[in-house]
Amino acid sequence: MPDLFWPGAERAGDLFDDGAFLRAMVRVESAWLAALVDAGIAPRDADDNLSGLVGEDDVADVAADAESGGNPVIPLLAVLRHRLGTRNAQAAEWVHRGLTSQDVLDTALMMCAREVLDDVLAQLDVQVAALARLADEHRGTVMAGRTLTQHAVPVTFGLKAAQWLTGVLDARTELTLLAPTLTAQLGGAAGTLAATCELARLSGRFTSGDEPAKAALAVADRTARSLGLRCGPPWHSTRTAVTRLGDALVRAGDAWGRVANDVLVLARPEIAELAEPAGRGSSSTMPNKANPVLSVLLHRAALAGPASAAQLHLAAASAVDERPDGAWHVEWSTLATLCRRTAVAAAQASELLGGLRVDAARMAATARAAAPALLAEQRGLAAVLGGDPARDPEAYLGATDLLVDAVLDRARADQAAGS
Amino acid sequence: MPDLFWPGAERAGDLFDDGAFLRAMVRVESAWLAALVDAGIAPRDADDNLSGLVGEDDVADVAADAESGGNPVIPLLAVLRHRLGTRNAQAAEWVHRGLTSQDVLDTALMMCAREVLDDVLAQLDVQVAALARLADEHRGTVMAGRTLTQHAVPVTFGLKAAQWLTGVLDARTELTLLAPTLTAQLGGAAGTLAATCELARLSGRFTSGDEPAKAALAVADRTARSLGLRCGPPWHSTRTAVTRLGDALVRAGDAWGRVANDVLVLARPEIAELAEPAGRGSSSTMPNKANPVLSVLLHRAALAGPASAAQLHLAAASAVDERPDGAWHVEWSTLATLCRRTAVAAAQASELLGGLRVDAARMAATARAAAPALLAEQRGLAAVLGGDPARDPEAYLGATDLLVDAVLDRARADQAAGS
Amino acid sequence: MPDLFWPGAERAGDLFDDGAFLRAMVRVESAWLAALVDAGIAPRDADDNLSGLVGEDDVADVAADAESGGNPVIPLLAVLRHRLGTRNAQAAEWVHRGLTSQDVLDTALMMCAREVLDDVLAQLDVQVAALARLADEHRGTVMAGRTLTQHAVPVTFGLKAAQWLTGVLDARTELTLLAPTLTAQLGGAAGTLAATCELARLSGRFTSGDEPAKAALAVADRTARSLGLRCGPPWHSTRTAVTRLGDALVRAGDAWGRVANDVLVLARPEIAELAEPAGRGSSSTMPNKANPVLSVLLHRAALAGPASAAQLHLAAASAVDERPDGAWHVEWSTLATLCRRTAVAAAQASELLGGLRVDAARMAATARAAAPALLAEQRGLAAVLGGDPARDPEAYLGATDLLVDAVLDRARADQAAGS
Amino acid sequence: MPDLFWPGAERAGDLFDDGAFLRAMVRVESAWLAALVDAGIAPRDADDNLSGLVGEDDVADVAADAESGGNPVIPLLAVLRHRLGTRNAQAAEWVHRGLTSQDVLDTALMMCAREVLDDVLAQLDVQVAALARLADEHRGTVMAGRTLTQHAVPVTFGLKAAQWLTGVLDARTELTLLAPTLTAQLGGAAGTLAATCELARLSGRFTSGDEPAKAALAVADRTARSLGLRCGPPWHSTRTAVTRLGDALVRAGDAWGRVANDVLVLARPEIAELAEPAGRGSSSTMPNKANPVLSVLLHRAALAGPASAAQLHLAAASAVDERPDGAWHVEWSTLATLCRRTAVAAAQASELLGGLRVDAARMAATARAAAPALLAEQRGLAAVLGGDPARDPEAYLGATDLLVDAVLDRARADQAAGS
Repeated sequence: MPDLFWPGAERAGDLFDDGAFLRAMVRVESAWLAALVDAGIAPRDADDNLSGLVGEDDVADVAADAESGGNPVIPLLAVLRHRLGTRNAQAAEWVHRGLTSQDVLDTALMMCAREVLDDVLAQLDVQVAALARLADEHRGTVMAGRTLTQHAVPVTFGLKAAQWLTGVLDARTELTLLAPTLTAQLGGAAGTLAATCELARLSGRFTSGDEPAKAALAVADRTARSLGLRCGPPWHSTRTAVTRLGDALVRAGDAWGRVANDVLVLARPEIAELAEPAGRGSSSTMPNKANPVLSVLLHRAALAGPASAAQLHLAAASAVDERPDGAWHVEWSTLATLCRRTAVAAAQASELLGGLRVDAARMAATARAAAPALLAEQRGLAAVLGGDPARDPEAYLGATDLLVDAVLDRARADQAAGS
Repeated sequence: MPDLFWPGAERAGDLFDDGAFLRAMVRVESAWLAALVDAGIAPRDADDNLSGLVGEDDVADVAADAESGGNPVIPLLAVLRHRLGTRNAQAAEWVHRGLTSQDVLDTALMMCAREVLDDVLAQLDVQVAALARLADEHRGTVMAGRTLTQHAVPVTFGLKAAQWLTGVLDARTELTLLAPTLTAQLGGAAGTLAATCELARLSGRFTSGDEPAKAALAVADRTARSLGLRCGPPWHSTRTAVTRLGDALVRAGDAWGRVANDVLVLARPEIAELAEPAGRGSSSTMPNKANPVLSVLLHRAALAGPASAAQLHLAAASAVDERPDGAWHVEWSTLATLCRRTAVAAAQASELLGGLRVDAARMAATARAAAPALLAEQRGLAAVLGGDPARDPEAYLGATDLLVDAVLDRARADQAAGS
Repeated sequence: MPDLFWPGAERAGDLFDDGAFLRAMVRVESAWLAALVDAGIAPRDADDNLSGLVGEDDVADVAADAESGGNPVIPLLAVLRHRLGTRNAQAAEWVHRGLTSQDVLDTALMMCAREVLDDVLAQLDVQVAALARLADEHRGTVMAGRTLTQHAVPVTFGLKAAQWLTGVLDARTELTLLAPTLTAQLGGAAGTLAATCELARLSGRFTSGDEPAKAALAVADRTARSLGLRCGPPWHSTRTAVTRLGDALVRAGDAWGRVANDVLVLARPEIAELAEPAGRGSSSTMPNKANPVLSVLLHRAALAGPASAAQLHLAAASAVDERPDGAWHVEWSTLATLCRRTAVAAAQASELLGGLRVDAARMAATARAAAPALLAEQRGLAAVLGGDPARDPEAYLGATDLLVDAVLDRARADQAAGS
Repeated sequence: MPDLFWPGAERAGDLFDDGAFLRAMVRVESAWLAALVDAGIAPRDADDNLSGLVGEDDVADVAADAESGGNPVIPLLAVLRHRLGTRNAQAAEWVHRGLTSQDVLDTALMMCAREVLDDVLAQLDVQVAALARLADEHRGTVMAGRTLTQHAVPVTFGLKAAQWLTGVLDARTELTLLAPTLTAQLGGAAGTLAATCELARLSGRFTSGDEPAKAALAVADRTARSLGLRCGPPWHSTRTAVTRLGDALVRAGDAWGRVANDVLVLARPEIAELAEPAGRGSSSTMPNKANPVLSVLLHRAALAGPASAAQLHLAAASAVDERPDGAWHVEWSTLATLCRRTAVAAAQASELLGGLRVDAARMAATARAAAPALLAEQRGLAAVLGGDPARDPEAYLGATDLLVDAVLDRARADQAAGS
């Protein structure tokens, strides 16, 4: 989905774009119909694979008709029923029975989000590897530590890479835990599954006591599983599923944002300790420029992420009744955009970290030149407690090496646990 | 631009979509080139109307190539130069001379925003008329005043409409003032117009003292005028122009949000004092439903607006150097989306207000039934100060009528001033 | 801490207020000093319990002097050293050695946050009990289900309570997992523990190889444990610890917000199915009013929470260098305010849920009156598939009972796991 | 009001703190009572100057009792009536008659905001003078222009100061226009002034036709004037007044944020072209440090501002009924905090700009060293169009001087218009 306003957008491919969302909604209808048939609630003839019935070409029409009822499921159903009508009247009649628009839409959101999580997790794995390599390789690369923009005490670039890695590992842990918990929404008009229970009862197969209710729950369970999602009680107005997604995705963006900020500082010509991978960042007028464009675009995304997560929280906090009157509707675009932008940033971060150019000599030269400042703390201690004032930044690196080890150990443990 | 995730999106037509933005960027290049020629800085042969050279079909390619330099101007120029090359080599050489990417992009943002303002202002005029009519017509329609969800004292629906109108007038005033101040960005690589001065000097026509600088400023001025924008000093890192737009657009959304909230409450079946225009709001499963879908969608937009304006402020507050390193980039999509969504909401609000169904009888019945509560304040005063306790809500309407008049007077004055 | 601008603020007591924060910072200095002594790095005479040295009365002076260095640790140290000077010169010399301001401040943030989590978790337990009781008691209390503000199909109030409970359980799970992971920040000037290593070396007890580094890490570990926190690598510019706190607290606020929204709707006089606990909500002028003031105040907090969490994410995403140049500083007030407001809302939500008045008869009456609408879906199915149209909303409750059971089962399991 | 979590807070003095807010509410009650007496609606004996009756010492009690009714006006009235009772029973009876809590609270918000605007405007005047001086003094101080962090073309520090000045002037213009428009809120229980009309009627002086209503409006008008505010129709649920304040204050913060960002970059030791005024920025452990702490704290405030303005917009967009059920309540703390923080930042920005140290020699040295990059654009033009390649950055400053003049002209015009 090209987007002139968000350079790099095409990195997300068709993840969570209109077409993917439309396909996901059709898959939900298809899986539900199959589950009704399998349960003996719908007649066997009603079974139908809906997947080819609606495609990219229908997006514009479905979207245009979505306003009238306030969501795209109603016009999508009209198309599905119309096309099914000519080949399978039973399916045309049974499709969507027992569901409500929100079931289809929310479940499709989770399916699209799941694909994004898989994609982002794959990128995070790439980044963990790249950062672990940088941290290990540069555990002896001394550089000026900087706090509040000023020289503080010496650090190593390996330690900085290890700190970047910590942020990336934090994001990876959270997304890894989140992915398998994504839950389908299957509750009918107001989250009671009443229509499905009624259908079960009318089928004549589930008639006594709570048999219809158990049958309805079984249909929901089967549908969720076949879509690769968890089943659970309907969450029409309890939107934890959505806010958790938002928070976790933004956490990844925070981690990349911090990396980008460091690169933007350290790639300034007066510092020049890092450079982005070659080949990008030209200017429309100045032939000399090599702008750190990946970091610029990551910084952009990091500035935008928090508001998206907040929007999802606001929607959750504004939920009311058995279906919110606007708070639900604001989630869709927010989540899709956040997901796509996170996928874009994930790929950009991988490219940046994979090709980052580290000028260890320049780092060392700056640290040496700044030694009087970088070693002032050490001199102060020596003056009071005895001992020699250090000459070289390398002599005042503290526990840097052990701290790098600790992060690398965590990276190995996390990767092992996550595989 | 269809958008499955934002029902109603097509109401914005092509306002500030990718195609419109691309065309606007081409117009900037074209106007600048013409101004260079007119000033005698570029040769007369370099003049060329670029408008047909690039179109909707180029969006995908330009977007895909935008990541490399971080913005779409660079690939757009490549296309322009390539196509010009075969028909006007002089134009191909002179196009964009003196400009920088940010000039083209920021000026195009303002042009697209200007079209949105015009569209929204037209809708606001429609709404002012509709609300003035409602306020006047219902100045005697008594209803329960509600504060903190509970019955308070009587009001009239005319007063409520007048208060809605005040919000709409506030937005209209602000947008009316803002529209003619939109300013082109024309400063060259770092906002000094150095290249244009150099071109002026090299032309041999502007050589002594500050002649080249004055010539460069004149080129900028002429370009801005021909695009219908103001000219002013470059604002590469001083983003007031952008935050003002965001604030004003969100202010309109706030006004519509408040209307929608009232409709959502008053259209509840237990209250039923208002109903949306007929013909929308069906359900995928419940044939009985007539959901207040315009208000739902307006409420959605009102929940989303504030974060957009905040995003633009954050970008302004994060500006640095002579061009920000990511804070600039986050503005484009934010502004375009906010503009489009405001245009959508504007049209929805017009439809809602134009067809709003007011059940004056129901209002009166509820107010009468609630009279003991609605008149408790009056009874309290009468008990202490003498006088008769009122029986009817109509007897305790205070200055309602004069307040309605005051708002209607303002509406007339504003319309007169704005025409 | 009284706060005219946030009614109910005193519910938070001194949680995370200025005094608590000052005390926590002193505890960090005290624990670190003790750990240095225990490790044999500082002389035994330097040991001193600092807890009584600084108190509430010092807040104003320390705060006033905080601007000069940009944080309150520097003036706090001046006070500590001055007062120690007269009673324990060794302690005065050794206090803070090896630490940096950020260590003290960040660790104190975590300590204050920990107390808030404990407080909120206790309230969540109360709410789980209250909601489980409501869900169970009202599993047969039929009411109108409402979607997009309109009557949909029947539900029970027990199901609504169960859905509220799900939100509360989600928050409880997250906070339970989070509390024991709060991690001290102990890294010295730039996160390398260099000064502590140097101190260890100069003590003559840790001289060869990585002994000084191991000793420094042991001091950090001992300090963290004695403060009830985890130890881990420094996170000066990797702020996951802070964003996770914010997200989890806001998630609780989202859950209460949804409850409040439902109460605000259902306590409207025209609906009157719920009422807040008696005794609050009077008006300054209308003797009749009983405003749902707890819900109003919870709604207020729910509107404010998301922006706080976003602010913390923005800070994390803006981190740079070995200590951020402003992004760190914006976290303190944001986190303290969010923590205090969450504690306030937690107590208000407990009071609301503990005394909520449910008018089951009114619910039933409304549902019966609305039966034609509420049963339209069922009638539609019966018309097509055979079967009798239902007369009573009670006959169309679907799997409501099993869904309530599922949530109650989860509540029991969660409580068992959390105890 | 000391605040450990926001270093520099005491710069705001008592602007918009709890005590000021309490005093403002008392002034509203006092002015309204006087207006009732003046109009002959209340008896002459009821006149009383309430200003000394309630003070700083009452804040805690009033705050503690505010939760019950949801706002501090109710307990404040109880205190006022109680204390008046012993000295002026008539006044005790007549105080607050005709008003509602929201009138008192909203009008007090505007009064406190007005004081903040005056304070901030005075600071902006100081900054305009300082920046005009810097722009003029350094119109010839060449430095490297930087875009996307990299060297672009030469600029002057005077031009940079002029761009900073533009942002400050934009904020000043807006606040200057806004200050005199702040409007009192005086509408009674639901914005109809019904009780005041009733009081007017019962006084026996205003009995026929719309005389009572006109008398009520005259009381409102007199009250507003005596408080230094405008009078207008009640705006209980139309919150433009609040959002405009928020937007304008944040716009000032954006301008200072941009200045701070530039200082933070240019004060890095590797660049060292600017330094903050001497005497701040020491470290708790590193004697060498001189952190750019004013800029750090301004950057902090700039990161926090946008969310505050968005919070106010969200409140406006969530308004409903004749008084919002939570959206109103969230405004108070948001607005007070934003106002106070803006006053703090205003003073810090004045100090920063007044004492900013500009190292013109270092700027020149960097620009000379970077000349090959900074003049690449010029060389490119010369290569194609003829002319000599420039040697010195000074030779490629374009219209810099005229642009500085244009901004200085505006500053003079603005100051003249604003006086």
